Amino acid sequence: MMLEPIPFLDEVLKEFLREDIGGGDLTTLAVFSESERKTIVKASLHAEKKGTLCGTPFAERLLRILDPSSSAKWNYGEGEVYPEGETIGILESRLSDLLAAERLILNLVKHLSGIASLTRSYVDRVNACRPSGMRPLRITETRKTLPGLRAFQKYAVRVGGGQNHRYDLHGGILIKDNHLAVSRSVRGILETARRNAPHPFRIEIEADTPEQAMEACQFGADAILLDNMPFPVLAELVGHLRSNRREILLEVSGGITLERLPQLATLDVDVLSVGALTHSSPDAPIRLDFLD
Amino acid sequence: MMLEPIPFLDEVLKEFLREDIGGGDLTTLAVFSESERKTIVKASLHAEKKGTLCGTPFAERLLRILDPSSSAKWNYGEGEVYPEGETIGILESRLSDLLAAERLILNLVKHLSGIASLTRSYVDRVNACRPSGMRPLRITETRKTLPGLRAFQKYAVRVGGGQNHRYDLHGGILIKDNHLAVSRSVRGILETARRNAPHPFRIEIEADTPEQAMEACQFGADAILLDNMPFPVLAELVGHLRSNRREILLEVSGGITLERLPQLATLDVDVLSVGALTHSSPDAPIRLDFLD
Amino acid sequence: MMLEPIPFLDEVLKEFLREDIGGGDLTTLAVFSESERKTIVKASLHAEKKGTLCGTPFAERLLRILDPSSSAKWNYGEGEVYPEGETIGILESRLSDLLAAERLILNLVKHLSGIASLTRSYVDRVNACRPSGMRPLRITETRKTLPGLRAFQKYAVRVGGGQNHRYDLHGGILIKDNHLAVSRSVRGILETARRNAPHPFRIEIEADTPEQAMEACQFGADAILLDNMPFPVLAELVGHLRSNRREILLEVSGGITLERLPQLATLDVDVLSVGALTHSSPDAPIRLDFLD
Amino acid sequence: MMLEPIPFLDEVLKEFLREDIGGGDLTTLAVFSESERKTIVKASLHAEKKGTLCGTPFAERLLRILDPSSSAKWNYGEGEVYPEGETIGILESRLSDLLAAERLILNLVKHLSGIASLTRSYVDRVNACRPSGMRPLRITETRKTLPGLRAFQKYAVRVGGGQNHRYDLHGGILIKDNHLAVSRSVRGILETARRNAPHPFRIEIEADTPEQAMEACQFGADAILLDNMPFPVLAELVGHLRSNRREILLEVSGGITLERLPQLATLDVDVLSVGALTHSSPDAPIRLDFLD
Amino acid sequence: MMLEPIPFLDEVLKEFLREDIGGGDLTTLAVFSESERKTIVKASLHAEKKGTLCGTPFAERLLRILDPSSSAKWNYGEGEVYPEGETIGILESRLSDLLAAERLILNLVKHLSGIASLTRSYVDRVNACRPSGMRPLRITETRKTLPGLRAFQKYAVRVGGGQNHRYDLHGGILIKDNHLAVSRSVRGILETARRNAPHPFRIEIEADTPEQAMEACQFGADAILLDNMPFPVLAELVGHLRSNRREILLEVSGGITLERLPQLATLDVDVLSVGALTHSSPDAPIRLDFLD
Amino acid sequence: MMLEPIPFLDEVLKEFLREDIGGGDLTTLAVFSESERKTIVKASLHAEKKGTLCGTPFAERLLRILDPSSSAKWNYGEGEVYPEGETIGILESRLSDLLAAERLILNLVKHLSGIASLTRSYVDRVNACRPSGMRPLRITETRKTLPGLRAFQKYAVRVGGGQNHRYDLHGGILIKDNHLAVSRSVRGILETARRNAPHPFRIEIEADTPEQAMEACQFGADAILLDNMPFPVLAELVGHLRSNRREILLEVSGGITLERLPQLATLDVDVLSVGALTHSSPDAPIRLDFLD
Repeated sequence: MMLEPIPFLDEVLKEFLREDIGGGDLTTLAVFSESERKTIVKASLHAEKKGTLCGTPFAERLLRILDPSSSAKWNYGEGEVYPEGETIGILESRLSDLLAAERLILNLVKHLSGIASLTRSYVDRVNACRPSGMRPLRITETRKTLPGLRAFQKYAVRVGGGQNHRYDLHGGILIKDNHLAVSRSVRGILETARRNAPHPFRIEIEADTPEQAMEACQFGADAILLDNMPFPVLAELVGHLRSNRREILLEVSGGITLERLPQLATLDVDVLSVGALTHSSPDAPIRLDFLD
Repeated sequence: MMLEPIPFLDEVLKEFLREDIGGGDLTTLAVFSESERKTIVKASLHAEKKGTLCGTPFAERLLRILDPSSSAKWNYGEGEVYPEGETIGILESRLSDLLAAERLILNLVKHLSGIASLTRSYVDRVNACRPSGMRPLRITETRKTLPGLRAFQKYAVRVGGGQNHRYDLHGGILIKDNHLAVSRSVRGILETARRNAPHPFRIEIEADTPEQAMEACQFGADAILLDNMPFPVLAELVGHLRSNRREILLEVSGGITLERLPQLATLDVDVLSVGALTHSSPDAPIRLDFLD
Repeated sequence: MMLEPIPFLDEVLKEFLREDIGGGDLTTLAVFSESERKTIVKASLHAEKKGTLCGTPFAERLLRILDPSSSAKWNYGEGEVYPEGETIGILESRLSDLLAAERLILNLVKHLSGIASLTRSYVDRVNACRPSGMRPLRITETRKTLPGLRAFQKYAVRVGGGQNHRYDLHGGILIKDNHLAVSRSVRGILETARRNAPHPFRIEIEADTPEQAMEACQFGADAILLDNMPFPVLAELVGHLRSNRREILLEVSGGITLERLPQLATLDVDVLSVGALTHSSPDAPIRLDFLD
Repeated sequence: MMLEPIPFLDEVLKEFLREDIGGGDLTTLAVFSESERKTIVKASLHAEKKGTLCGTPFAERLLRILDPSSSAKWNYGEGEVYPEGETIGILESRLSDLLAAERLILNLVKHLSGIASLTRSYVDRVNACRPSGMRPLRITETRKTLPGLRAFQKYAVRVGGGQNHRYDLHGGILIKDNHLAVSRSVRGILETARRNAPHPFRIEIEADTPEQAMEACQFGADAILLDNMPFPVLAELVGHLRSNRREILLEVSGGITLERLPQLATLDVDVLSVGALTHSSPDAPIRLDFLD
Repeated sequence: MMLEPIPFLDEVLKEFLREDIGGGDLTTLAVFSESERKTIVKASLHAEKKGTLCGTPFAERLLRILDPSSSAKWNYGEGEVYPEGETIGILESRLSDLLAAERLILNLVKHLSGIASLTRSYVDRVNACRPSGMRPLRITETRKTLPGLRAFQKYAVRVGGGQNHRYDLHGGILIKDNHLAVSRSVRGILETARRNAPHPFRIEIEADTPEQAMEACQFGADAILLDNMPFPVLAELVGHLRSNRREILLEVSGGITLERLPQLATLDVDVLSVGALTHSSPDAPIRLDFLD
Repeated sequence: MMLEPIPFLDEVLKEFLREDIGGGDLTTLAVFSESERKTIVKASLHAEKKGTLCGTPFAERLLRILDPSSSAKWNYGEGEVYPEGETIGILESRLSDLLAAERLILNLVKHLSGIASLTRSYVDRVNACRPSGMRPLRITETRKTLPGLRAFQKYAVRVGGGQNHRYDLHGGILIKDNHLAVSRSVRGILETARRNAPHPFRIEIEADTPEQAMEACQFGADAILLDNMPFPVLAELVGHLRSNRREILLEVSGGITLERLPQLATLDVDVLSVGALTHSSPDAPIRLDFLD
């Protein structure tokens, strides 16, 4: 649990608890006696709609931080699809600790299951539409994550069947439009990058036009991000690029909706990166009910 | 800036920067020389749709943390409505610092402007529909916030014209269904609460039925949260409650959509609390462009 | 133990240990061999005077942080009165850990028992002097606590039978003389507060004169703090206030000594707040002796 | 200011501010507009009784943390005696920041001035009673400090004219009764200590009887703490010890009251250590008033 | 300064200061008056042997943290070679701050200049021996850094003309002997890695034998680390690998001494990684003298 | 384990882990399935040369932090000499945790064993050469430690048979050449120090010339550090000093190499302090191999 699913998780979870509990749960302290607060109670997590489950290790850990003798039973595993109307799992803990953790557990599980569910939709659609025999096509998130929640949101993308793009500015080389805006030619910037970038990284460059993409391909980019291009342009461009350098890594981004996926899935590219997975996915409707 | 808009903000912003920058911006270091990195550049924040602006002090502060000589000019003030297609503001900073802060500034401003814009819609609708002469009706968020972002999200609600519910479990007395589920009668729990709760707080209790609400009113609740009741039930109940205790504070929550607001705005209550403001508001579409 | 008696206690206790132990206990390392340091020893906490016990969970926890197999047996429970000359409890631990924790345990238990004992005197005196049939009268501390020790001192007040005032500036609305000094009329400031203050809070205002108090009562204060008024003035004023608004919450503060309590206990008010409980209470004389 | 008066002070002061301000000053936000909150105001610190001033650098720093353009003017310097009824100093700051810092400034200045004033009484009495020509006699505190406040309390002792005993368990070698209780003879424990203790430290040992003291003197203690001995015993014992080893350092502790000082000041010893300086000194009565 | 030379540097430097200064510089406080401590003094950094300078921004920053009005003048720039017997730079600061920072400045500058000097020797030797027209050959460190000092040591390698290997386990894909020891074939592990590894990274694999290297080359490794192979084996193997896949990245490590460099520099590889740069480089002999 | 071998160790070790693991071990996650990652594996620590073992409690603790069910068996104890070619110990843990901790364990154990081995050489040489009947002669380190590693390096010195000099600037009084450079006479500075220094400390002063040393001896220094003097000067000076004050503590430093030890060991002094122990000791060659 120290390294997985997220390294050094406990301190972040304690910060989250601190945010919601502050100096203590005034209501519980005011209405229950000490012995009532220690009563063992159960609560169910109930799915109001179908979704892909994400966040169970965090829910367990949050409860365990407050009450080490708490427990959780799950009817669905992390990453599994749960149907509408079913009980997802049962939490058991001291009354005061379950009341204190309840809201945070829901806030986290609903948000992450929302992301996992949306990612799962993208991945399933791609898998269904990808012509057989083609290279694998990844769905990844971007750096459009909510501040403080990146590790959690990227984990939810993996749980939903997606894969991760670079973690942060230290986790990849990606030359973007704003680098080019203040810089030399594509060729110049690529040569500088090859000289300076640490060798464990591929050198990826964003291209906003087919010309930039062809130039990047010619001058040694390891990967090209084709940003915001219409499908016909993409289709033709990918063909040219592949015929020049068969093994170059190609990524497509910009307005990748579920509706466009069947078409995009036919492109001979490696990665579709989707900002919407993390910045605007709706909560999964799950509720928590105390059981008698 | 130490206490407003959010107390002790800088440390949180530094954590956010750390999350995105980690051990350093590899790309910028690889493609620009030290003197290029120190070039002063400008970038505009551009509105792709109309919205209510939120997050400008954070954008400035983030940039100032990295580059103390950076500056920002805003065409719209915090909380103002900006039209589609306009430039919201201009940031000026060293190249490397603007490249490093760009994504985080967008992630924060887009998320918070999303919340402020949604809140503004609620508040404007209520103001438009509230019959004149009635008591003021507040729109508040709930504790359904994203972990780690509560202070920011609650601030965005205020910027959008809303008001805040209790900050955390230490910031209010609210007896909920799950307290009642394991407890005595409404009367018993209210008497215990009055004996024990710190006197600076009102004692609020959630009622799921009119009977619970009437009992709470009779036995001294300072405030009642009427949860998930249909409008006709609410309308009748509020009348009964007001005739019993004119000054009791009444809050309504559960499925409060923009569509239902015109009707709800006619109720003689004090607060409408809306979870959707913070857990699922979509990003405001804003982009950042480097200027020549 | 995670949330009670004080949430997230362990990190604070570790800071306290760090303050006293620093880079290690040089004396113990210099005079005992490794095996001597691991010897299990016992020590008693001995009461040199009668008092109200407070701090036992912290003593146990401090010792447990250093030596998880340590134990404590208490002859008196938290909050109980112990007589002069008695053994309060027995601690058992590894020699080096007991030597390292000894001073901090005493510093904490003596300070908190001092506060609890003083609070208990106030509460007992009030209970003895309050005419039967009157509303309950609370003894509370104020914000005159020692920096860094607020949670501990407020806990000790509760353990001594008192109740807590607002925890911090974020935990209550209290309009004080210094707000009024730079502001509008009582009426104006109350109207502004009612419009802006979060609804979970009562609006309390300090009154230094009967006129201010009457004005506050008239314009909707939920609670009034009557500060530094002589008894005859208080007695008459409280009568007027109650006849205007029977349920308004009334608090009295300023120079509330044990000697004045019999008189003050006859007032028809709700709260007496006493700064001296936390800023100047003398240590409870308790000593720790190693047993053979 | 980074190293003096206390190293790395700002982070501790920020923790203190955080403790009192939490998520923000609700009252000030509720009753003042943004422009009112930024008004510059002044407040005086007023002495209700004579005392020795301590804490001015902390007051300034606290205010400066919140409002970098704040200022303070002092009529009395740190460590100076101020008379009853006088204005000690004037603080000037933004309204909201002065309201936020006011309570903490008072809590700290009153507590530390209380310690400095008590220490000053001890030191002045010793200076008045010490026969001329004798070696200097120091007044020091002990480790009986309040958790989290040690650096502040020890500083206040210095400001009051006292000197400091060891800072923590890592800041001195002091073999106490509890070490002897589980150990060998005085001789054995001293030989072990001389072999193992880091050479920058004197080896001091506590003696509860004249026999222990003489043995410690004979077997090489650098310093002896004579604990809880009546004056006649002390007087005779000190003579014996000095005739054996003229330069041995002698410390006396246990029940050192102001009343006993004239007698104790005639002893040919180096140090009087006084626990009461830090664990139970009463607050100095100082109040803060806003000026028109 | 916030992001370069090392992001978020100040907090680490403060930790370093705290380690050496603790509760304050007792000696300086004991022997100098407050006004003496504030005297402005100068000190020179003097080179006892030739070396490559590294650490000047840290020296400045450390001093500036303690004394914001301090200054530094450098006769040699960061990364420049300084000759034996010369003054490297002059520091100017308050007496007490220079005395407090002196040891830490030396510890850091001497250690980092030691690493930079050693790296510079490697890089110069490679540059001198590399036949013209060959691909660039990088000198990099490894993860054999001293705990807590990785960012500093890697920076010193860059300052000495080297380049960096992966920063940490999250900053690169490197399949090592211990992965292979518990795994499938080279082919199997490479296929799994290609399926799962984030696309911004090259997939590098360590080969201990030519057979492993050839298999890795065949099954799609992006980079191969040839570990601990004798020169003739390397020479032959590199030829085979290049003829199979011209653009594969090749790294050599294991016992890369200055003596072996002329021979190794003739290999058609991209990277030589040298653990000794960071784990065992000797201090650069530099001393600090106060000037009159 | 909370206080020994280093107090509050776990947080530092977690920082070290965080430095090397960052957001997670990408390679292990990419090449092993979840069940493979949980396989229990063993690895041996193997000595490539003879040395003195140091760091075993840290190795165990690091592994235990990641995998609480991990274990370690040691063929040699902490501080024991291990021969070349032998297995030092066997670690057993989950695969993913051993892979994650491996590098850090080696970095720490190799560095600390390097220091312990070097210290052991010094101590053994002194013990072999010290004429019988003379006072004990200590080998200590100095403050020339690597930033962030002081507690570890000082511990390694003790494990190697050495003793510790002052821990930091708060852990001893040592008047150095730079204090004298800006100060009064030796006599003046010593008198000031005696008046002001806390009594638990000896007052030590550095002397660069015999004259300074004699003056320090005359005016009451408790200890003198004889810095950088040739042996004949030292030999004569020590005789003079001892004949003046038999019990004064004498320390020698400056260029104390193994070669000079036989001569230096004949001096009638108490301490030899050796900077090289911590700033430049080479790694002990130890490797970690996974076992089948």
